[in-house]
Amino acid sequence: MITAIDVIQTKRDGGELSTAQINWIIENYTSGIVADEQMSALAMAIFLNGANPREIADWTAAMIASGIRMDLSGVGRATTDKHSTGGVGDKITLPLAPLVASYGVAVPQLSGRGLGHTGGTLDKLESIPGFQVGYTEKEVAAQLRDLGAVICAASKDLAPADRKLYALRDITGTVESIPLIASSIMSKKIAEGTDSLVLDVKVGSGAFMKDFDQAKTLAETMVRLGSDHDVATTALLTDMGTPLGRAVGNALEVRESIEVLSGGGPSDVVELTVELAREMLAAAGIPDADPAEALRDGRAMDTWRAMVAAQGGDNDAVLPAARHSHEIKAERDGFVSRMDAYAVGMAGWRLGAGRSRPGEDVQAGAGVEILKTVGDRVSAGDVVYRLHTDTPERMDPAIDSIAGQWDVSDVAPQERTMILDRVR
Amino acid sequence: MITAIDVIQTKRDGGELSTAQINWIIENYTSGIVADEQMSALAMAIFLNGANPREIADWTAAMIASGIRMDLSGVGRATTDKHSTGGVGDKITLPLAPLVASYGVAVPQLSGRGLGHTGGTLDKLESIPGFQVGYTEKEVAAQLRDLGAVICAASKDLAPADRKLYALRDITGTVESIPLIASSIMSKKIAEGTDSLVLDVKVGSGAFMKDFDQAKTLAETMVRLGSDHDVATTALLTDMGTPLGRAVGNALEVRESIEVLSGGGPSDVVELTVELAREMLAAAGIPDADPAEALRDGRAMDTWRAMVAAQGGDNDAVLPAARHSHEIKAERDGFVSRMDAYAVGMAGWRLGAGRSRPGEDVQAGAGVEILKTVGDRVSAGDVVYRLHTDTPERMDPAIDSIAGQWDVSDVAPQERTMILDRVR
Repeated sequence: MITAIDVIQTKRDGGELSTAQINWIIENYTSGIVADEQMSALAMAIFLNGANPREIADWTAAMIASGIRMDLSGVGRATTDKHSTGGVGDKITLPLAPLVASYGVAVPQLSGRGLGHTGGTLDKLESIPGFQVGYTEKEVAAQLRDLGAVICAASKDLAPADRKLYALRDITGTVESIPLIASSIMSKKIAEGTDSLVLDVKVGSGAFMKDFDQAKTLAETMVRLGSDHDVATTALLTDMGTPLGRAVGNALEVRESIEVLSGGGPSDVVELTVELAREMLAAAGIPDADPAEALRDGRAMDTWRAMVAAQGGDNDAVLPAARHSHEIKAERDGFVSRMDAYAVGMAGWRLGAGRSRPGEDVQAGAGVEILKTVGDRVSAGDVVYRLHTDTPERMDPAIDSIAGQWDVSDVAPQERTMILDRVR
Repeated sequence: MITAIDVIQTKRDGGELSTAQINWIIENYTSGIVADEQMSALAMAIFLNGANPREIADWTAAMIASGIRMDLSGVGRATTDKHSTGGVGDKITLPLAPLVASYGVAVPQLSGRGLGHTGGTLDKLESIPGFQVGYTEKEVAAQLRDLGAVICAASKDLAPADRKLYALRDITGTVESIPLIASSIMSKKIAEGTDSLVLDVKVGSGAFMKDFDQAKTLAETMVRLGSDHDVATTALLTDMGTPLGRAVGNALEVRESIEVLSGGGPSDVVELTVELAREMLAAAGIPDADPAEALRDGRAMDTWRAMVAAQGGDNDAVLPAARHSHEIKAERDGFVSRMDAYAVGMAGWRLGAGRSRPGEDVQAGAGVEILKTVGDRVSAGDVVYRLHTDTPERMDPAIDSIAGQWDVSDVAPQERTMILDRVR
């Protein structure tokens, strides 16, 4: 007979959990027989003692089996999805899903809300007046069939074990564990029923994984889990030492995404969008596509507008803006040589773009505009950051979090490398 | 600003918790601001990464400060107490408290209930018809002044942080950790207000500490905590590889205790009672006492009967007996050479002498009689164990737990050494 204490003690004492133990604990945690306190002790034991590939595979399979596995076979298109491990200014999903869909591929982008210093895709989209993210499985399939792109909330029936465990890890200091991160992401994505998946694994101060080797191990672990479950999975390791693009915050990031879809936008956002699209299209059987073209010629924008309209959003509405702003200026001439992503993410969070507990409201207009980014030439007095919030008492903490976390120097920094590695 | 996640992460990453962090987490855990899930992750991190003497001292002090510290100065006698880390057949508190009190010393024996394979002192005493264990602080002081001995439940106001944490550790696989055990025991004993304390630290299969070195470290840790708080503390390390005495179970152990108080009883129980009494009396300023004398001449028995009567118990009642019994016999001639304490403890627990969750009822009559113990000569067919229970379906699991966990051999085993070491 398996008990929660036996399972905890096995992992606590450095042992390997059996398949039966893993199935038992996930099943009984989902149903509430195993208490949160017990799962939290087990999560810490996994954090500290690790898990081997067999355990991670079993854990992921058990989390998938805790809920439904969506069937997208009726969509009539190849399905492909992208997941990012989360970064500051990472709005890539917004231009990427319509861009890839404009090639006739289906992109079932089931997304989450933000918690902590990285924003959530749904929070960003909800800054568009009218935009709806609550979808049933049938509605997801229908929009994929008709349009190819949907960005909506994941059903509560997808990997419910992960839903519980994710909330628990967040309050118990057990987030940054490769076995737990990999199984969390992959259980949701595999349950979603996509044929292929491209992972954007962030590396650097604004990411969970601060160093390259850890990020690479995480990427390899997830790619293997995908293949085990017949989801063709590749991963790009991408730079998150500097914020992505020039906008951090919900409506600010939507505006920047629309610039990219109009053929403009910051070069790093464009590069990453195009590279991820290339991977997704290759996985969906279109290896020779040039996604940059669909940004230039308006096809991606057409799909975006169709998707926004289908989800109830007003394409012509003015996006919300915050009531208060504050500018931070360069004190000398030179080049912006460093801009810490985590510091900018924290500033956005403190301004009201993010939440400190699940269910809290976010401010649509709050966030940080980056007028000069790493590599840009500045003169003393040039505005580098513009901070936005509806609640003026949030301004000072945001200013504090940026202070000292960026530099201007006499020489231009090395050019940024966005794509650090590729795992397949 | 301190947060629960910061505290957890510090210990998770192998760091040292500051005094402020420890005070904050214990205070906020007691008041319910820090969630059980968070404390459980922290307990696992402490289990795996340890705690240094300064952290253990701070943790203990914070748990004491979470409740009241009793003032026994009005008792008018020196106070001394004993704590055992728990063993199979360990009924020593029952003869010991009246024995020591018969020398004019006060013994405030605030005790607990059993959980798992070791029995609880209060469960044993409650098998005496009428015996009451619910006492207020005032009532404890009054009985100590009048009689010298009281064995009752600890007040909920003594170290409430420990009360919560103890229940949590029990279900989260975080029991056998020296920092957590030492701080748990010592916070309660120091808060109880005794002048001196003798610890009986068990070593062997029936104890939490299976090996001598660990048990010695635990003893040294607790002795140091006692001295830090001006409680003169010594520890005996005693053998718990074999059950103590010849009775395991609530009423069975009361009966054996009464034999000891009558000047008889198993030699190991008598030896341990006398040695612990000698330590306690020395700590209370009576170094030359011969406690064996007070067992022989009836003084200890007089105090016992007075204590039972004062607590509402009927000294002349027939103790409850179980309805079903089963005998396990020797299959060959020889000497009992091994009898695993843990196996016998588990058998008693399965028979109904213990509980599997807090609040469950225990059976007064259930348990194991040991008719032949280690060193005894047996002939084939001699009864070695007699198992008792009110619920016959509990018999087979108990038989299973004893099977294979004892040996008969041709040569007599080495004589048992009860007292393995002394720490002061």
